[in-house]
Amino acid sequence: MTKTVFLLNGPNLNLLGQRQPDIYGRETLADVEAACAALGRDLGLDVRAHQSNHEGALVDLIQQARRDAQGIVINPGAYSHTSVAILDALHAFEGPVIEVHISNIHRREAFRHHSFVSARAEAVIAGLGTEGYRAALRRLAQLLA
Amino acid sequence: MTKTVFLLNGPNLNLLGQRQPDIYGRETLADVEAACAALGRDLGLDVRAHQSNHEGALVDLIQQARRDAQGIVINPGAYSHTSVAILDALHAFEGPVIEVHISNIHRREAFRHHSFVSARAEAVIAGLGTEGYRAALRRLAQLLA
Amino acid sequence: MTKTVFLLNGPNLNLLGQRQPDIYGRETLADVEAACAALGRDLGLDVRAHQSNHEGALVDLIQQARRDAQGIVINPGAYSHTSVAILDALHAFEGPVIEVHISNIHRREAFRHHSFVSARAEAVIAGLGTEGYRAALRRLAQLLA
Amino acid sequence: MTKTVFLLNGPNLNLLGQRQPDIYGRETLADVEAACAALGRDLGLDVRAHQSNHEGALVDLIQQARRDAQGIVINPGAYSHTSVAILDALHAFEGPVIEVHISNIHRREAFRHHSFVSARAEAVIAGLGTEGYRAALRRLAQLLA
Amino acid sequence: MTKTVFLLNGPNLNLLGQRQPDIYGRETLADVEAACAALGRDLGLDVRAHQSNHEGALVDLIQQARRDAQGIVINPGAYSHTSVAILDALHAFEGPVIEVHISNIHRREAFRHHSFVSARAEAVIAGLGTEGYRAALRRLAQLLA
Amino acid sequence: MTKTVFLLNGPNLNLLGQRQPDIYGRETLADVEAACAALGRDLGLDVRAHQSNHEGALVDLIQQARRDAQGIVINPGAYSHTSVAILDALHAFEGPVIEVHISNIHRREAFRHHSFVSARAEAVIAGLGTEGYRAALRRLAQLLA
Amino acid sequence: MTKTVFLLNGPNLNLLGQRQPDIYGRETLADVEAACAALGRDLGLDVRAHQSNHEGALVDLIQQARRDAQGIVINPGAYSHTSVAILDALHAFEGPVIEVHISNIHRREAFRHHSFVSARAEAVIAGLGTEGYRAALRRLAQLLA
Amino acid sequence: MTKTVFLLNGPNLNLLGQRQPDIYGRETLADVEAACAALGRDLGLDVRAHQSNHEGALVDLIQQARRDAQGIVINPGAYSHTSVAILDALHAFEGPVIEVHISNIHRREAFRHHSFVSARAEAVIAGLGTEGYRAALRRLAQLLA
Amino acid sequence: MTKTVFLLNGPNLNLLGQRQPDIYGRETLADVEAACAALGRDLGLDVRAHQSNHEGALVDLIQQARRDAQGIVINPGAYSHTSVAILDALHAFEGPVIEVHISNIHRREAFRHHSFVSARAEAVIAGLGTEGYRAALRRLAQLLA
Amino acid sequence: MTKTVFLLNGPNLNLLGQRQPDIYGRETLADVEAACAALGRDLGLDVRAHQSNHEGALVDLIQQARRDAQGIVINPGAYSHTSVAILDALHAFEGPVIEVHISNIHRREAFRHHSFVSARAEAVIAGLGTEGYRAALRRLAQLLA
Amino acid sequence: MTKTVFLLNGPNLNLLGQRQPDIYGRETLADVEAACAALGRDLGLDVRAHQSNHEGALVDLIQQARRDAQGIVINPGAYSHTSVAILDALHAFEGPVIEVHISNIHRREAFRHHSFVSARAEAVIAGLGTEGYRAALRRLAQLLA
Amino acid sequence: MTKTVFLLNGPNLNLLGQRQPDIYGRETLADVEAACAALGRDLGLDVRAHQSNHEGALVDLIQQARRDAQGIVINPGAYSHTSVAILDALHAFEGPVIEVHISNIHRREAFRHHSFVSARAEAVIAGLGTEGYRAALRRLAQLLA
Repeated sequence: MTKTVFLLNGPNLNLLGQRQPDIYGRETLADVEAACAALGRDLGLDVRAHQSNHEGALVDLIQQARRDAQGIVINPGAYSHTSVAILDALHAFEGPVIEVHISNIHRREAFRHHSFVSARAEAVIAGLGTEGYRAALRRLAQLLA
Repeated sequence: MTKTVFLLNGPNLNLLGQRQPDIYGRETLADVEAACAALGRDLGLDVRAHQSNHEGALVDLIQQARRDAQGIVINPGAYSHTSVAILDALHAFEGPVIEVHISNIHRREAFRHHSFVSARAEAVIAGLGTEGYRAALRRLAQLLA
Repeated sequence: MTKTVFLLNGPNLNLLGQRQPDIYGRETLADVEAACAALGRDLGLDVRAHQSNHEGALVDLIQQARRDAQGIVINPGAYSHTSVAILDALHAFEGPVIEVHISNIHRREAFRHHSFVSARAEAVIAGLGTEGYRAALRRLAQLLA
Repeated sequence: MTKTVFLLNGPNLNLLGQRQPDIYGRETLADVEAACAALGRDLGLDVRAHQSNHEGALVDLIQQARRDAQGIVINPGAYSHTSVAILDALHAFEGPVIEVHISNIHRREAFRHHSFVSARAEAVIAGLGTEGYRAALRRLAQLLA
Repeated sequence: MTKTVFLLNGPNLNLLGQRQPDIYGRETLADVEAACAALGRDLGLDVRAHQSNHEGALVDLIQQARRDAQGIVINPGAYSHTSVAILDALHAFEGPVIEVHISNIHRREAFRHHSFVSARAEAVIAGLGTEGYRAALRRLAQLLA
Repeated sequence: MTKTVFLLNGPNLNLLGQRQPDIYGRETLADVEAACAALGRDLGLDVRAHQSNHEGALVDLIQQARRDAQGIVINPGAYSHTSVAILDALHAFEGPVIEVHISNIHRREAFRHHSFVSARAEAVIAGLGTEGYRAALRRLAQLLA
Repeated sequence: MTKTVFLLNGPNLNLLGQRQPDIYGRETLADVEAACAALGRDLGLDVRAHQSNHEGALVDLIQQARRDAQGIVINPGAYSHTSVAILDALHAFEGPVIEVHISNIHRREAFRHHSFVSARAEAVIAGLGTEGYRAALRRLAQLLA
Repeated sequence: MTKTVFLLNGPNLNLLGQRQPDIYGRETLADVEAACAALGRDLGLDVRAHQSNHEGALVDLIQQARRDAQGIVINPGAYSHTSVAILDALHAFEGPVIEVHISNIHRREAFRHHSFVSARAEAVIAGLGTEGYRAALRRLAQLLA
Repeated sequence: MTKTVFLLNGPNLNLLGQRQPDIYGRETLADVEAACAALGRDLGLDVRAHQSNHEGALVDLIQQARRDAQGIVINPGAYSHTSVAILDALHAFEGPVIEVHISNIHRREAFRHHSFVSARAEAVIAGLGTEGYRAALRRLAQLLA
Repeated sequence: MTKTVFLLNGPNLNLLGQRQPDIYGRETLADVEAACAALGRDLGLDVRAHQSNHEGALVDLIQQARRDAQGIVINPGAYSHTSVAILDALHAFEGPVIEVHISNIHRREAFRHHSFVSARAEAVIAGLGTEGYRAALRRLAQLLA
Repeated sequence: MTKTVFLLNGPNLNLLGQRQPDIYGRETLADVEAACAALGRDLGLDVRAHQSNHEGALVDLIQQARRDAQGIVINPGAYSHTSVAILDALHAFEGPVIEVHISNIHRREAFRHHSFVSARAEAVIAGLGTEGYRAALRRLAQLLA
Repeated sequence: MTKTVFLLNGPNLNLLGQRQPDIYGRETLADVEAACAALGRDLGLDVRAHQSNHEGALVDLIQQARRDAQGIVINPGAYSHTSVAILDALHAFEGPVIEVHISNIHRREAFRHHSFVSARAEAVIAGLGTEGYRAALRRLAQLLA
């Protein structure tokens, strides 16, 4: 049976492919979402993608996932480091969660080394570029199988 | 004369009664708001309830309370620990403020032990369950008398 | 059946109503204890009040509560911030414990923001004035019901 | 050629002139924005003013500035101290950025001494009152010349 | 008119002259108390000396001073570094307080460098040996004049 | 010649065998004291046991040991972590001191990892259960031989 | 042309599948190495696997990789948190490095949250189970293409 | 009536225009002082400029300002981060003080982020280049009006 | 039935009796191992002793103990303070572990106060001299009985 | 035989009696120096007074004291908290040193709680007002006798 | 009489001249060892060189030096920052020890600023390039003369 | 061509040979300067020596070196640990800088372990005694060749 997975991207990830391509690469968010949807079809997953710059909107989306999805792939962007609200929303979600960062946050400023979300996520992937989303989906497919 | 009190709940408290009932109990937010409205009527308070997952929306609501309310009961949820904006909005409110947490935040992770809001609140109640809201209203009634 | 509750007050609380009335109010400890006894009767609780300036005496009293009481309301005063011995005595007590502070300790010096007792208490009430004791008793009555 | 500058104000700055006038002065935000527009005309700058209590809305506005503006004057208010998302949005903006605080944040609580935005801004002005916005505009005019 | 001064010594100071004479000298506590009484007579002060190893007893004595004394000279010994209860009792005393340490605590272990009592005392004298008590009395006589 | 040894137990150790038997075992303090007295007789030691919940009483007892004992076995309980007064009393005692903890304090909360007494003790034994007292006595017998 | 990749595992990973299967799973290291070799063949990579409990041996192997390999997948195990020597050896290696942890180290003790190796690695994968090695190989294949 | 303002520059600012022009620009200190004098004349201020590499000389100058000046613009250079003596001298000056840094100190090493002087200054300007001095003078003129 | 116990000594303990005899005593490691073997025979334990200066070799030995031993007495020496690898190996061992230090590490440099191994050991003995090993064996005999 | 004592005052103490009289009193430095000279004559001490705002000049004066004086009374003012150079100069002086602060530095900002000089001084007096200098001279007279 | 000196190099120093020549120069370790042997002959020292990537092997070598050498020159490389075992081995060596770092470790990452070995070494030389070894040998020759 | 080198010594180094000879040796500063001048002649360096107890004077001298010297050997003494002004002056000097400490500062108080100057110096030599100056000159000669 097809499982639904939410693919959530946080603040400034709508600029993917447009800013700091040396760090984040040249693929746009639309490219990534399309590639994830395609991979999802291969894996038997219905991948629904959302992006928001608003912490509250991401909380709303995660709450919606409680009804509509069995797993979450999330790149919380800057909110990784500052949002307890997103962590709490994820605690209220019962399925598996994979956290993705496009760059290796451990090579950047010290305040990017800690993510509140990591305390809840099953796995954390950082620095695989946009390939990280696809590795996360493959793992979710295993966990949801 | 009837005083108006805002009863504000922050992120994820709309899930009350649905998630982690061992920590937060089984009453829903609607139950709590109704019980507070009823108790308010006994105490001569007009209790107006709002919930939002958005930090900015909570700031907006507190600013609105400057015009429309004489006191505030607030459970800032996760924003307790991260929001200076809510603290600043409360500093701009002149009436009494009571901070409520349903669980005893001092028995949870260390990052939940500090609340920015506590520096502004007249009182802080943690761990009384949803009874905390009612204790807060009783106190507000005394302070506004 | 009537339950027995110990109402314990720590160092300097015997001065209640006499020192810094702007912080602690004008009610004396005897007033508070009488009001709590009266409320206890309404709630079906036999409230037995003790105060001591001695950490060891408070440990003795909490140990005595293991035999004689089903719940404890405690304002550990200054020992909140420094006493592991009181914490350990409370760990050896099996009933519910509510911690009360008359003032909002989070608005005072930083060393007053941490209480060892909070790690054991079911609930923490700070800043409700002497009303806090009564809110604590109401909660104990619920928990012991 | 006229350059466009975004004048962005963060949470609670819509209350300017209404709260704590001893700290923030009596000019309203509308007064400030009008004065900045007028000064902008003298300096050959088209000043477009926005205020929001929402972190995400400020991120949206900064992203919009990538298309529509050559420089930014920003008073991030409370988000100075807590928002990595705004910092990241500013990193994705290529023109000069000047950070303004109406009060001298270094004379207030310790948590106001650090601003994430300062790591990105060309300059930081604190404590000049609303004159700070005008000093920022004069500097932007130099930098954009 | 003769003023009464309490001369309070904390834990282990009853051993004065018996332990670590290289640090604390060879005068006994009785010697010191007699010398202080004599000096008090010269200064028009009735000096009443007490020593206890019990934190609670020191709190009791300071509370008694609220009725019986106009000033306090206190060497809190080891409780300097650990007792908020003594600090609070001193806050409830309205006359001047001078804190004395026989040795220079700043040349000993780091945990002896901080004294809670110093936040309340008018003056702190460390390292003058038992002469420190007499210097304290001279100062109290000035302040009470 | 028979040497005298004080066996001192701090706060809540009078509850031994009654509370948290999974941590502290089922032997009572009286059992332990009797076993130590018996072992002492074998080792040529006169073991005198005392327990108190009062920090000051423990200071008094250690001071008494200066006259009456040649060695001390002490389990300071919670006062290990908070009492400089007991440390100072032990500094004034000239014989060997062995510190005992029934449980392995390094596997418990972080604030239990530091003991002021350890800076004075010849040895520290943690986690041997009540056997730790007997190992301490055997060592004292060696050191006093 | 076939590229050679070293697959290095640090201390205690030879026990994979034998200890704490709830954390590390039931696959043995031999299983993992065989699966990686097979996947390597699909990806055009010659995967050579080594494991050692010795920090110095891991340094030796990384130095050998300077001659013999174009990329490294490394799970430094406990040495992640303590070894600067391994970090330095990796700095002397010029090809891409991917760091893998089988469990999500951010959900374990605080001292496991920091890895010296992460400052050198292109990417860090934690919590994907043994699938993490394969995700790392896929990424290396992309980077070496 | 003309007001006198001291323009004080601390260590190494005599090298302005000679060292690290990418950080500090190419204007010399003499250029800056002349421009400030000229602007001062427009603003009705008599600007008297001094520079010293000596902390004590800066203290002397600030003390002289108590007699001779109504306001101070100061760039304490490296002494910002290390001098309590200059802070104390400024505390003894009664007029307004504006602190200026040519570069944005918040983008440099961490030890440059804290300035003792900021706790006393009415305003802090960092990163406006030498324009910062002129912005400070304009503000002083307002404050002294 | 005879149980096997590994007696493991870490770096520099092969020098026992040769270096700093005031701290470590004059018994050699061979003396200690012989005495432990003899005591083991009395206790029904087959004591097998190993020493290594190599962290990895100690990990190897602990892994070997998974097959060959039912309990471990370990003095990890300097690796106590720095080795997570040894901690992890001990986590993979299922029998009881007793940690021994010959000197009282709490009276030495601060970096010796923390031992990673203590988080895994049943008990920690420090400062009993070489008697500590024998006390550990006696305890292991109890636990293995 | 008359002993010579240097009375050294650090930065801003030349303003004594002129600034913040509520903290520092109304006596001028000349008054203090005269009173100390007079008391010195009574005590058989030749008191030579110096004040400087320059750290280096204070170092010079302390070095001069090595030849010319047998004791030093020093109020290092702000340099207490920042000067290792003065500490080192005092280490090179062989006679007794008494450190004086007019106010109780422990009641002021946290950075004033630590004095480098205290690690070298025989005694530290804070908060006795200008009486502190005289108490220091009396003690020096004892120590030099 | 010829003295023997051990020249010990830690992990990754076998790569000298091969990696990061901008930091470490182009001389190989063999070059350095040969130059040191030659200089040793001039100074009357028999220089015996060893390198290892293994912490335990370095401990072994230092223990061997107790028998075979009168002095040690050591570049502990990465183990400087993490090895207490090497520190302890050096404590067991009685002759002089000089610590050498080729680069200036104080200009690199913060974790390289602390060396355990420095607490034991007579001298520390950092940043002289390979010349540092020769400066160390010259000093050892003086100390052993 | 002869290069000029400044040999700068900071506070209290004029006492060399007079104070604490066990730490600093018996050579005077004049001896050291003469020996350096002589060695300089051998190396083709014109060594000009200066000493000052004044931080500002050292800044002046370093600025003078910008015109008059090609290299600097500096022992900043106590200012190593507290002076950003000297660091900044050295940043404005373009030639090589070698930092020398006569004693091994890493074996002394913790506040002596950090030197601001080390962040700018090419090399740091500590504990070679006055030989350190000569090692520094030899290195400067290499770097200036």
